Amino acid sequence: MADLINSKIWLSRPKLVCGVMTGTSLDSIDIAFAKFDVGKKGDHEFKFLGGNEYKLHPKYAKTALKLINKNTPISDFSLFQVAYTHLIKGAIEKAAKEFEIKEDIDAISVHGQTLWHQPDKDEMFDLQLPHTLQAVSASTLSTLLEIPVVFDFRAADIALGGNGAPLIPIFDYNFLKDEKEDVICLNIGGISNITYIPKNSSDENLVAFDTGVGNILIDSAMLKYYRKKYDKDGKIAKSGKLDKALLELLLDDEYYKQAPPKSTGREKYSDTYFKKLVDFKENNDISDEDFIATLTRFTAKTIAIAINMFTKNNAKIIVSGGGRKNKEIIFALKKELPQNNVVMIESIGLNGDMKEALAFAYIAWRSIGGMYSNLPAATGAFRKTRLGAVSFN
Amino acid sequence: MADLINSKIWLSRPKLVCGVMTGTSLDSIDIAFAKFDVGKKGDHEFKFLGGNEYKLHPKYAKTALKLINKNTPISDFSLFQVAYTHLIKGAIEKAAKEFEIKEDIDAISVHGQTLWHQPDKDEMFDLQLPHTLQAVSASTLSTLLEIPVVFDFRAADIALGGNGAPLIPIFDYNFLKDEKEDVICLNIGGISNITYIPKNSSDENLVAFDTGVGNILIDSAMLKYYRKKYDKDGKIAKSGKLDKALLELLLDDEYYKQAPPKSTGREKYSDTYFKKLVDFKENNDISDEDFIATLTRFTAKTIAIAINMFTKNNAKIIVSGGGRKNKEIIFALKKELPQNNVVMIESIGLNGDMKEALAFAYIAWRSIGGMYSNLPAATGAFRKTRLGAVSFN
Repeated sequence: MADLINSKIWLSRPKLVCGVMTGTSLDSIDIAFAKFDVGKKGDHEFKFLGGNEYKLHPKYAKTALKLINKNTPISDFSLFQVAYTHLIKGAIEKAAKEFEIKEDIDAISVHGQTLWHQPDKDEMFDLQLPHTLQAVSASTLSTLLEIPVVFDFRAADIALGGNGAPLIPIFDYNFLKDEKEDVICLNIGGISNITYIPKNSSDENLVAFDTGVGNILIDSAMLKYYRKKYDKDGKIAKSGKLDKALLELLLDDEYYKQAPPKSTGREKYSDTYFKKLVDFKENNDISDEDFIATLTRFTAKTIAIAINMFTKNNAKIIVSGGGRKNKEIIFALKKELPQNNVVMIESIGLNGDMKEALAFAYIAWRSIGGMYSNLPAATGAFRKTRLGAVSFN
Repeated sequence: MADLINSKIWLSRPKLVCGVMTGTSLDSIDIAFAKFDVGKKGDHEFKFLGGNEYKLHPKYAKTALKLINKNTPISDFSLFQVAYTHLIKGAIEKAAKEFEIKEDIDAISVHGQTLWHQPDKDEMFDLQLPHTLQAVSASTLSTLLEIPVVFDFRAADIALGGNGAPLIPIFDYNFLKDEKEDVICLNIGGISNITYIPKNSSDENLVAFDTGVGNILIDSAMLKYYRKKYDKDGKIAKSGKLDKALLELLLDDEYYKQAPPKSTGREKYSDTYFKKLVDFKENNDISDEDFIATLTRFTAKTIAIAINMFTKNNAKIIVSGGGRKNKEIIFALKKELPQNNVVMIESIGLNGDMKEALAFAYIAWRSIGGMYSNLPAATGAFRKTRLGAVSFN
């Protein structure tokens, strides 16, 4: 590879990268534009040029969930990859207009839609293998937009024995670490994860892992009982009371106490999992708002367990992700973690909705620049590696 | 892309590329090693270093056919991509040993297993889109072998309105064209295709398309009635007689007369298609050997129709692909095309089993070298484009 990709030329000037992310919430595409460069001290710098969430097609979530949960013809998946890619293309064009991006985009970084993620091994052809699947047709995107596309970020780490997640810690380490105090970067998306960066740590001894759910269960319950996509500002949760028996049931799971590295996903918090909770709710006459309130507390509680068990006291918590807007999650979190200073990522000048899209833009920039991006301390991989593939245009 | 891939450096020295192909026959992996270089006149040269077919796992065909024909969980596909990639890895390692490849391999070109190919449009998210799916986890392969992997060759052409096939014509044009006579490169694999290169033609006015079946129906019938994978040397066909009514039924299909560009695949000659033939056979008391003989004649007949309708008289036919070993196909072909000189590709010094693997190795070499590889005259695409993506290592 040494002489295949022009890493030196790539790193010689600032590069404009467009990061594209669709998470487990399946409702929108995040698009972020940023210019990355190597600073005078050899450190990395970026300038955020703009970014937003763009609603996906009304049938997107249903289509993706059918692929995830049901047996489907392979042609559905084949078509989905290309159709989703066209939605991405539309969103990028809209965003480029909205943020008046006039310069050439040097590369697009597309995470792809995770349809399966299984760091645990499965058997096929007498082989025991972990596997992960992020749908996107990068060739289609790069050909239509005439811009190189970097994609498939998780498979290499999985191939090296890692969990393929979390990958955001390299971004956290480079842009959120603090020389003066320990920092915990907490992202509350569909799933929640933290990166714990003690002051003066290298990228080899930080701790990063998925703490468990973010909004995923709350959103499922909101859809079922309120026909809404999420609990805006946590208002429903605020109107309800905690159901202790349900919380106990939710917390009765080895995952939360298991030592990192570890990762989880939509596979764990599946329709089957959710149905068990719904059965419990109905059998125990738990009201809709108490159900939401308890799921909300559960999110905060699992984050707090993770922070109490696997980080040291007093670290500053920097919160990003859609869940930071759920006031009840944040309220519960502050209550559970009185020793920590909980701040929103905006307080340090970053857009908390765009962090993941930005982070994958950064990872693509690093990969073309010849740098590793997985951190074995976070993923459990045997070694560091460059991540992703680049499609020609 | 201009300064992303070091095309000039790539083309400045001979490059050793390993081509990996698994076709519609689903029984083996073709591995070919070749060194490509730019010749003194700016033409392209290659030296074949060795190659062979390596049997796939006994459960491979069944697993792939289940994915192609049945509704399956997405996790089966996700696992298949990685498991198939490990089979490729094993075959490459075996081949490198067998052919004593001691030098560094500069790139691996992996076609991937086609599980779906649909140049016709399908609807999703209010979009009408063609799509194609070649399974492989290139990131896994490049990471484990520490060699760049080029893959996903068909999607770009499909995105540009092409059939995504055939792609071999660029290889035919560069290495099989003849200044003195018109040439037809015929490959008989699961599907059959031809590239017609009139002498003195440019790569913009050649004609190339899938003629229809190759071995696919013969192989299905051999499995069903003889429990064998194929009709060795065409012996069963030779022992049977042509059933005219069945041949008529088979030929009653607009595809064969449709003007190129056009392509077809396993989707067309599906289980459903085959079952109709079996029903006809049983209802009309056609013997097993007559069934095989008729399917064999059908293959030759469709190739002859294509050549008679869409090429000019007297072109030399150079035959490659596994079907060239079926003596009855070749015998019938010579009978149907008395005006053409039919020669095996070996007569011009090439290994006929390795042509596709070699061709994709060449396409990968071209893509890294900054060259297009699809020919709009062959695929019907709006324009030429580089093909494929390259995974980092």
